[in-house]
Amino acid sequence: MTTTEPESAANAGSDAPAACHRAPTTAPAGPHGYTANKDAHLKRLRRIEGQVRGLQRMVDEDEYCIDVLTQVSASTKALQSFALQLLEEHLRHCVADAATKGGEEMDAKVAEATAAIARLLRT
Amino acid sequence: MTTTEPESAANAGSDAPAACHRAPTTAPAGPHGYTANKDAHLKRLRRIEGQVRGLQRMVDEDEYCIDVLTQVSASTKALQSFALQLLEEHLRHCVADAATKGGEEMDAKVAEATAAIARLLRT
Amino acid sequence: MTTTEPESAANAGSDAPAACHRAPTTAPAGPHGYTANKDAHLKRLRRIEGQVRGLQRMVDEDEYCIDVLTQVSASTKALQSFALQLLEEHLRHCVADAATKGGEEMDAKVAEATAAIARLLRT
Amino acid sequence: MTTTEPESAANAGSDAPAACHRAPTTAPAGPHGYTANKDAHLKRLRRIEGQVRGLQRMVDEDEYCIDVLTQVSASTKALQSFALQLLEEHLRHCVADAATKGGEEMDAKVAEATAAIARLLRT
Repeated sequence: MTTTEPESAANAGSDAPAACHRAPTTAPAGPHGYTANKDAHLKRLRRIEGQVRGLQRMVDEDEYCIDVLTQVSASTKALQSFALQLLEEHLRHCVADAATKGGEEMDAKVAEATAAIARLLRT
Repeated sequence: MTTTEPESAANAGSDAPAACHRAPTTAPAGPHGYTANKDAHLKRLRRIEGQVRGLQRMVDEDEYCIDVLTQVSASTKALQSFALQLLEEHLRHCVADAATKGGEEMDAKVAEATAAIARLLRT
Repeated sequence: MTTTEPESAANAGSDAPAACHRAPTTAPAGPHGYTANKDAHLKRLRRIEGQVRGLQRMVDEDEYCIDVLTQVSASTKALQSFALQLLEEHLRHCVADAATKGGEEMDAKVAEATAAIARLLRT
Repeated sequence: MTTTEPESAANAGSDAPAACHRAPTTAPAGPHGYTANKDAHLKRLRRIEGQVRGLQRMVDEDEYCIDVLTQVSASTKALQSFALQLLEEHLRHCVADAATKGGEEMDAKVAEATAAIARLLRT
């Protein structure tokens, strides 16, 4: 976390919800749209990690194929819920911030978000 | 693993690829369609577990939202590939075995497999 | 429909649920797993066609983007339900028939069905 | 189309890309984010309608199940591409417009867009 440090040069002068972009390699990544819910996100991801470990146990113990598939569906659904939450925060903070600046920056952010949604849909 | 033990009573007399069904609670789960590729499946699942841990690191280090979403898509795709592999083995062994017995057993297996595919599609 | 005609040479001697494969170009396509439910399938597809025409009307009348998206989701879901129904009949008839013949024919059918499921999942 | 008419009261005073919301029942629907590409959208939807009619012909002529499923996947993919295009325009125009107004309006728009994305993902 870098929230207590001064903002990186890239964001200087912005009263925006902070670094809604990839950090320059010379600077620490700034907090993003999802930073406020970081603990909730990590907790959710640890639960998904547990589900994937549960899948390993099921396979190791020769559990019934269909039951394994049901657990795969649950894990995939959990990953997608996480993605939707992240996406909502990204739209609320990063895209909205770009919108107030307008023009090319907004266009780039929207194209980038749409491409990310397309990747989620194609899986 | 129970492959070296005599088959459970539930499967006695079957020359089928073994217990393609939920194990009775009083018996160990028998090997399933996917048993032959168990090591490959476990390796694949451990890689997915690593991807989910990678997601936690990304969130913890405040990486860019869009990059996190890209990694979520990769994990979801990996889970679906695993599911497809499992499903193919299930169709090849368990459903095929039921087909040779015909009638109600086959209908039940096909309905069950279709429901599992529906769950995968809905995620 | 060719159900009242003699079966094509390709299927002669089979007591199977009929031509569960691509018709040779010189012969009419035989009835498939889904033939019994043909009327229901056609009715379902006409309803989906109506949904897609409804989408055109919505766009033409400048209806709200989000409402158009909701209708797209409904159409996609209807197409997937149709696909699942078709797939279930294919597994029940064509794959099961191949299973009784065993060996390579079964392997080819299962691989083909799995590839079709993968295409559905990737959309 | 209402682009040549004076804007409805609901949008008066807005220099925004126009009625990015459901039209009040007493007024005509205003042009939305996707209005500029209306002809392209209608052309695309007519092509999808043609695909769905093609599916009916395939079923009617007893074509091979797997080939029908391949065409279903193509139609579903086409619908999703259309949805993504619409969504991108919605984010670019309607959500961006709400962003400049800030506060509750923005939150509502983002929540609504996220719910629409969730519906697309769940199909």
